[in-house]
Amino acid sequence: MKRGVLIVLSGPSGVGKGTVRKALFEEPDIDFQYSISMTTRQPRAGEVNGEDYFFVTREEFETEISNGGMLEYAEYVGNYYGTPKSFIDRTLAAGRDVLLEIEVQGALQVKEKMPEGAYIFLTPPDLHALKQRLIGRGTEAMAVIEKRVSTATSEIRMMANYDYAVVNDEVELAVRRIKDIINVERLRVHRVLPEYVEMIEELEE
Amino acid sequence: MKRGVLIVLSGPSGVGKGTVRKALFEEPDIDFQYSISMTTRQPRAGEVNGEDYFFVTREEFETEISNGGMLEYAEYVGNYYGTPKSFIDRTLAAGRDVLLEIEVQGALQVKEKMPEGAYIFLTPPDLHALKQRLIGRGTEAMAVIEKRVSTATSEIRMMANYDYAVVNDEVELAVRRIKDIINVERLRVHRVLPEYVEMIEELEE
Repeated sequence: MKRGVLIVLSGPSGVGKGTVRKALFEEPDIDFQYSISMTTRQPRAGEVNGEDYFFVTREEFETEISNGGMLEYAEYVGNYYGTPKSFIDRTLAAGRDVLLEIEVQGALQVKEKMPEGAYIFLTPPDLHALKQRLIGRGTEAMAVIEKRVSTATSEIRMMANYDYAVVNDEVELAVRRIKDIINVERLRVHRVLPEYVEMIEELEE
Repeated sequence: MKRGVLIVLSGPSGVGKGTVRKALFEEPDIDFQYSISMTTRQPRAGEVNGEDYFFVTREEFETEISNGGMLEYAEYVGNYYGTPKSFIDRTLAAGRDVLLEIEVQGALQVKEKMPEGAYIFLTPPDLHALKQRLIGRGTEAMAVIEKRVSTATSEIRMMANYDYAVVNDEVELAVRRIKDIINVERLRVHRVLPEYVEMIEELEE
């Protein structure tokens, strides 16, 4: 059984990760498993355990943490939210690709534990157009320019930890680039080598 | 100026590297520079210096070697053949992609000096079908099976040094996969990061 590919879609807040992820799942030839988060918050009306979230108690979540079972987690407004490793592991082992959409800090935590994933950094088109826009205007207050430059700089620092940079200029184009990345990731030697080695071992028996 | 991508197409002898390379260059949307080899052999009728080969004297070739100017070289039948680094460097620096088609030993030498290239290993479809074919026949002499297994094993060992494995089952499909690889290589963070950093540095001036 060929192992699935873990695709991690991340990027700065406001870049449009959710929109791109939804568009990806609407593609007819895409059959990912979406990575389901674990949380201690109460299910809302209509939310299904194991579909929207894995709903657990605070004790269960903390047990997972101490067992090293969380790829990443954080606490917001008194509730834990995180990515359980076992679900992703089982899905990949069954040969299915997993998509994890996550903010930058979480993605970097996941990468430490699962470096074999394909880490995609969605970049704002602003970053490309920034220079032209600022110079073109010619009237921008220095404080505004400095703030923008500082934001762009820290985004670039984060990007260096990823495998791919995909500009989200148009959702359709970003989706096409991500689909190309996934197809090509399947050709990477470190992914296909075990398959060849296994075949050879069977031949040699 | 965005640097071009070095694409190294290699694989075991007889796999069809030349056929796939020619088909790639016939694609309307492909605009590579083919890496031109340097040789000390005499030009044949119709061969043009700087197009078919860089034709040089034995002394010139040996000077290049001692200056570290050859990415790889070998001697056949009293003549040197090799890949000059400066031509590839200049072409990449001008923003043009370079395709180098080369046998496995040469490719590994090139990789030591230019690890940033995209190294593609063309695999024979036999390797996939090998097990089924051998088992299916049921009548293969053990010596033949062992020879095939040994060839397959050493091919797999070489593959581990490459970035991508492309099965040459059909030339058209292999070409499509290689084109996808090239598109996706352009999205790799280590290629686009310098561009972003440069932009930021200009912004900060």
